[in-house]
Amino acid sequence: MNHRMIKNILGWLLIFDGAFMTVPLITGIVCRERECLWFLLTIAVCEVLGASMIFFRKPKNKMLYAKEGYVIVALSWIVMSLFGAVPLWLSGSIPDYVDALFETVSGFTTTGASILSDVESLPKCMIMWRSFTHWVGGMGVLVFVMAFIPLSGGSNMHIMKAESTGPSVSKLVPGVKTTALALYSIYFVMTFAQFVLHLCGGMSVFHALNTSFSTAGTGGFGYYNDSMASESSYHHWVITVFMILFSISFSSYYLLLKKRFKAAFTLEIRVFLMIVAVSVIVVAYNIRHIYPVWTEALEHAAFNVSSVISTTGFSTADFDQWPELSKTILVGLMFVGATAGSTGGGMKVSRIVILVKGMGKELKTMVHPNQIKKVTIDGAQVPHEVVRSVNVYMVCFVLVFAASMLVISFDGHEFETNFTAVAATINNIGPGLHEVGPAANFSFFSVPSKLVLIFDMIAGRLELYPMLLLMSPATWKK
Amino acid sequence: MNHRMIKNILGWLLIFDGAFMTVPLITGIVCRERECLWFLLTIAVCEVLGASMIFFRKPKNKMLYAKEGYVIVALSWIVMSLFGAVPLWLSGSIPDYVDALFETVSGFTTTGASILSDVESLPKCMIMWRSFTHWVGGMGVLVFVMAFIPLSGGSNMHIMKAESTGPSVSKLVPGVKTTALALYSIYFVMTFAQFVLHLCGGMSVFHALNTSFSTAGTGGFGYYNDSMASESSYHHWVITVFMILFSISFSSYYLLLKKRFKAAFTLEIRVFLMIVAVSVIVVAYNIRHIYPVWTEALEHAAFNVSSVISTTGFSTADFDQWPELSKTILVGLMFVGATAGSTGGGMKVSRIVILVKGMGKELKTMVHPNQIKKVTIDGAQVPHEVVRSVNVYMVCFVLVFAASMLVISFDGHEFETNFTAVAATINNIGPGLHEVGPAANFSFFSVPSKLVLIFDMIAGRLELYPMLLLMSPATWKK
Repeated sequence: MNHRMIKNILGWLLIFDGAFMTVPLITGIVCRERECLWFLLTIAVCEVLGASMIFFRKPKNKMLYAKEGYVIVALSWIVMSLFGAVPLWLSGSIPDYVDALFETVSGFTTTGASILSDVESLPKCMIMWRSFTHWVGGMGVLVFVMAFIPLSGGSNMHIMKAESTGPSVSKLVPGVKTTALALYSIYFVMTFAQFVLHLCGGMSVFHALNTSFSTAGTGGFGYYNDSMASESSYHHWVITVFMILFSISFSSYYLLLKKRFKAAFTLEIRVFLMIVAVSVIVVAYNIRHIYPVWTEALEHAAFNVSSVISTTGFSTADFDQWPELSKTILVGLMFVGATAGSTGGGMKVSRIVILVKGMGKELKTMVHPNQIKKVTIDGAQVPHEVVRSVNVYMVCFVLVFAASMLVISFDGHEFETNFTAVAATINNIGPGLHEVGPAANFSFFSVPSKLVLIFDMIAGRLELYPMLLLMSPATWKK
Repeated sequence: MNHRMIKNILGWLLIFDGAFMTVPLITGIVCRERECLWFLLTIAVCEVLGASMIFFRKPKNKMLYAKEGYVIVALSWIVMSLFGAVPLWLSGSIPDYVDALFETVSGFTTTGASILSDVESLPKCMIMWRSFTHWVGGMGVLVFVMAFIPLSGGSNMHIMKAESTGPSVSKLVPGVKTTALALYSIYFVMTFAQFVLHLCGGMSVFHALNTSFSTAGTGGFGYYNDSMASESSYHHWVITVFMILFSISFSSYYLLLKKRFKAAFTLEIRVFLMIVAVSVIVVAYNIRHIYPVWTEALEHAAFNVSSVISTTGFSTADFDQWPELSKTILVGLMFVGATAGSTGGGMKVSRIVILVKGMGKELKTMVHPNQIKKVTIDGAQVPHEVVRSVNVYMVCFVLVFAASMLVISFDGHEFETNFTAVAATINNIGPGLHEVGPAANFSFFSVPSKLVLIFDMIAGRLELYPMLLLMSPATWKK
């Protein structure tokens, strides 16, 4: 384990973590809020500590292996959240540190699960920080950091692989730096487009910025206690469209820009859009009696289906009150999640596609044991290791899920609450059902349960392996 | 597809199905119940139909391939249940045929989920038929049939593989017939031992027979409306011990008889007993405040934990009223299930062991990509295909589970009801929680939901593949 190199990268991470806090700091200065001084303090601590970690005992060997990639990514997300929670805690906005940490982890992991019952009473700089953590966490922080600090190519790749979403990493252009830059540019432009559309619809700059940040990261933190219910239909539809857009692999936009239309419109994206369409229609039909006109039912169905499958977690209605069929569909979509390489969470559609195709292949092999079958997607054969790794992913997912359920059941809440609390955190959605439904929050859980859910949020965002490896003794053995 | 051979074996199956019904017929004659005449009628139909299927258009080619093995097993269980339901239905004991089919499938698959609210009002011959279906289904019917009809060795093996439980079939002695005979002898002796113990405890012959049949098959149909709650502590402990004994691979008893103690006490059995012990202690501690003395809490904890993990489904208490931790443990145990090669259902402990070890292997491979790791159990390497097939099994399980949940959610019942209804049927337990808890039954579900649950029971008992292959178009293509 290259300890010095790990320390070095964590130092760089703190430098950036501090830099990100200038956004809420500026918000606070503009809005003349005294609480923003806590950001100034935290920034100072991050920069000094970060700089000393970089320059004290520099690494002799800059090489990183796969396991160090996973460890760095896991530690980075933990360290980033530990420091990110400080202003929320010290300012008294969230008086309990574990709660502040829960909120910050929920922010960076783009979950959007909150322990706050009254968001509106927060200072604006704190609201901005919550939304901005979504934006930062959506694309991944380390890939961003990697674009600035010099590392050998292989080391870069290990970190990118550990942080990015989906079963396999596709390199768009040679070099991690160039890829990262291309993806971040698309991310920035799309966020800006949404911001402008909200301004056109009459939203204030502050609200438009927050909404765009939260949507782009598929996070889900809002600024009203009723999430997005009190916004107009225009804004609902803008958010719906952008939740879907941000659930689609950024590589596809890059390919679109390069006019490679066929390559951009992958099977994963087609399946994703089909799932969205079918779910919206079924849910809209199922909830039609709740709303006076069918357009309203469609609006709520489209918004909340998109919100859940994109793992954003905004809501325009308390879907915990919807009929059981709609609720079951929403719980199912929580697990499906967005497409690989987007900012969305969940299992990812490509994994589901590989699982289903792999299952079909196995069944065919049973019928004709002597024929060799292959799993193909978009005309290309899916490598054997990817299929296996997706199967193993599913197994890890189920085991982590079951273990989490068991621990939080010590609190004595109901089955549906426990099940959807774990589902909503490990899939980075935000709200679940029942006691953690859209109209409720996560504050009632005990500290051990909150720590488990914090683990689940980070594990879910990093797709399990980095957190599992961090805890595995084999990683730390010489 | 060797249609004639399939028809031939199904004919034999009907012959045996009819023969099995002599047990309730005799019960009815002894108890002087007029309803037993329906068994006589059904026996006649089965024997005539069966004989004509065997002797009309005999198969020229007796060879069976793997896919025919799966199809035969799936069809056999369906046909057996379709005819087994007839006496229950015609006699008016269960006036609706789908309900009667649900009850019969629940019997043969050793699930024990019932649509009856008042078991006590049934004629004794019907109660005996329900318990006896458990005993027949527990060990597998076709393996029994195979011991009587002449088939080439390879064909036998395909059918045995498709019907027996667990990730791999271990041949104890050369020849399927000898293996089947050895296992059935052990089964018979153990059932008889339990029967005698109940008689010694003052149970009537009828009740002792029913209890022994239901326990041996890890089924769970009782003769009282409160399941086993009104039996004495002595009987509770006898049943508890035998539920555990019948959850343990029958091969191990065979090895014990051969004095191969070390080989008999496999890792799977050690893990199974450890899970039982830990669960009993935690649940007993968790429910201690409900009962006046700790011995009573221990008795109920031991009984109901054993009942769920063995997938029997008897109950001595309405565990739906227990604290959430105990309920979550019980739901978890539903999925774990018994050991491979026993009469119990669920995922099987060996699969869980392989999944966890496989996950550990994958994590180690990530840390040290150049080292070759192997999954070993009891000192022997687990073949690569077994590990893969277990992973695929898990995936199929999750997909079937999710699809079932979605369909039955159309009925509009609560999440916990739907979740545990599917869990209790696909794992062949019996009762779930909430609206399908130990004090309730499955009668309120709609016909489509009942059909889905019937599918889940058979799919669960046959470990998914036979039913999935039956529905797969690839199986039927030439």
